[in-house]
Amino acid sequence: MSRTLSLAVIPGDGIGQEVVAEGLKVLSQALPQDVKLETKSYDFGAKRWHETGETLTDADLAQLKEHDAILLGAIGDPSVPSGVLERGFLLKLRFAFDHHVNLRPGKLFPGVKSPLAGEPAIDFVVVREGTEGPYVGNGGTLRAGTPHEVATEVSLNTAFGIERVVRDAYARAQARPRKKLTLVHKNNVLVHAGHLWKNIFDRVGEEFPEVTTDYLHVDAATIFFVTQPERFDVIVTDNLFGDILTDLAAAVTGGIGLAASGNINPSGEFPSMFEPVHGSAPDIAGQGKADPTATVLSVALLLQHLGYTAEAARIEAAVAADLAERFGTRSTSEIGDALAARLAAPAAYRVQPG
Amino acid sequence: MSRTLSLAVIPGDGIGQEVVAEGLKVLSQALPQDVKLETKSYDFGAKRWHETGETLTDADLAQLKEHDAILLGAIGDPSVPSGVLERGFLLKLRFAFDHHVNLRPGKLFPGVKSPLAGEPAIDFVVVREGTEGPYVGNGGTLRAGTPHEVATEVSLNTAFGIERVVRDAYARAQARPRKKLTLVHKNNVLVHAGHLWKNIFDRVGEEFPEVTTDYLHVDAATIFFVTQPERFDVIVTDNLFGDILTDLAAAVTGGIGLAASGNINPSGEFPSMFEPVHGSAPDIAGQGKADPTATVLSVALLLQHLGYTAEAARIEAAVAADLAERFGTRSTSEIGDALAARLAAPAAYRVQPG
Ligand SMILES: CC(C)[C@H](C(=O)O)[C@@H](O)C(=O)O
Ligand SMILES: CC(C)[C@H](C(=O)O)[C@@H](O)C(=O)O
Repeated sequence: MSRTLSLAVIPGDGIGQEVVAEGLKVLSQALPQDVKLETKSYDFGAKRWHETGETLTDADLAQLKEHDAILLGAIGDPSVPSGVLERGFLLKLRFAFDHHVNLRPGKLFPGVKSPLAGEPAIDFVVVREGTEGPYVGNGGTLRAGTPHEVATEVSLNTAFGIERVVRDAYARAQARPRKKLTLVHKNNVLVHAGHLWKNIFDRVGEEFPEVTTDYLHVDAATIFFVTQPERFDVIVTDNLFGDILTDLAAAVTGGIGLAASGNINPSGEFPSMFEPVHGSAPDIAGQGKADPTATVLSVALLLQHLGYTAEAARIEAAVAADLAERFGTRSTSEIGDALAARLAAPAAYRVQPG
Repeated sequence: MSRTLSLAVIPGDGIGQEVVAEGLKVLSQALPQDVKLETKSYDFGAKRWHETGETLTDADLAQLKEHDAILLGAIGDPSVPSGVLERGFLLKLRFAFDHHVNLRPGKLFPGVKSPLAGEPAIDFVVVREGTEGPYVGNGGTLRAGTPHEVATEVSLNTAFGIERVVRDAYARAQARPRKKLTLVHKNNVLVHAGHLWKNIFDRVGEEFPEVTTDYLHVDAATIFFVTQPERFDVIVTDNLFGDILTDLAAAVTGGIGLAASGNINPSGEFPSMFEPVHGSAPDIAGQGKADPTATVLSVALLLQHLGYTAEAARIEAAVAADLAERFGTRSTSEIGDALAARLAAPAAYRVQPG
């Protein structure tokens, strides 16, 4: 009996093309022999927008929905006004496919240089809510262009939306050795949203008696990210705070060149989407300079999500081994080749992720 | 002819009492001989709230308004529900006195250990808007306590409010050697507020042709705070982003024990308020363990604001000299005494701030 993995591939803009190629190389190598990989490439991004004015149509969504998962490189280009592709493609997809668990591991691999002194032992996961908060696009402008202009942005938060992501985060904490979950919000100022988060966090916690919990204001959390990052295990937070904290997490764990993410719909009603945290980096695009590691680690999250746990662990082990031995400068495809080779070698199968 | 400085002193909760005492010690020493310091102490904080249910009344505001400036230690105690004193006192005062320029320098003094590797040269100022954004208290809750609860928070942004703080930030950038101003927002997602900020930032910039500008999304800004903090000179940003970035700034410059702030009303219509960025730290209160340096540097900002520029510089020089020579553990008052002694010594008057 043979299985199929139907993958939508969105290379996107800038370095997206290059890193996705390496991600696929590694994916092919990592998949069990009996799994047939079927990929279909989509041309979303700046070029399509310039040519057609489209970012993501209903027909596109219907096609994407047929896949088991989506792998995305990067979307964004300076030639497109800020916000058009972000709101019109990236956020539209997250909302359309109800990607409410935005999963972003923050792990400092041995051998990777952190900007923090003293090589702290960093290994946490941020569970960022992906479909609510200030990201809902509920804002407006009054008297535009006049000295009396007023602009609003509304953060919308629902018990339904918070509870499902909080429960997901507890389950992830429960499954990790340290079993610790930190809620990050700003409930001393954003009292309505903050108290809703905190109440649900406390209530759902009763279902997970083994999980230790604490709460931090977002400002205090940024301090701990640089002074004591080892204190974190799983973090659950709102969409905007999660956006900010995960870039900071990427920075302290060696840079966004290594940071992976999953936009997950745990129900499986819609395919989940996996992408590096970095953007399209137009300044280095087409030069083979981009590090594909973040994309490769996103492929590992994708496999994990689809239940290929051992295969995901092998990819992470291959990345860990590669990072530990890195020296000199390699091109995008050299790094991809090296990772694929490690996965092809039987020895790699015995390495455990660090 | 003699001058008077009428100062409202709010020691507040926890370590607030201890650090304010040292701040006043240094202030007395630093003021020119012909300036008479008149202080009046106010009992705001947790104790008063427990006894009277009051945080800050109209009568309090009327009294505070009569002073030239306000020095605050810290407000907040675990015995008071989260949000009560923050919204009811700290934010109420900022809004009532229209403290729209929330000034927070981020400077790594020689001799101070940063959590960042490689001792970066950090010397920037964050100009945080203080009276708008998500801090306006415009939120609500629907169907509280039910599975259908919805909570909102509204960020309000006005051309008037943004323009005045942006212009203030340009003027500060113009007065510094590097003359660089960075706007931080998230205009690819918060498009209404973000574009208003960006449009005003660009337009006001035309009045300051010597100032170099750039723009960063808040998530990217946190990356640069840890990987390249030396790139920043003056930063202007929204209330919430400023809250987050200034705690991170404090962390990378040696901790909130050293971070000063001013809540400034540049028009002088209401007195400005100066306070350390740290909180009341109830865990170490009353033990003489708190570092009063953040309060002392806030006193320097206070003097600067009132036009005592040379005196402010002398305090900063005394702090710089003290930090450069720090070893061993000193109590709160030992540090205050050491700083006061430096200011008393004629030599201190010749030291230039680093
Ligand atoms: C590009 C932008 C819309 C996006 C976000 O803010 O979520 C990005 O910063 C991210 O973190 O994935
Ligand atoms: C205590 C709180 C209301 C306050 C804020 O969020 O502004 C504090 O974090 C600060 O930065 O001064």
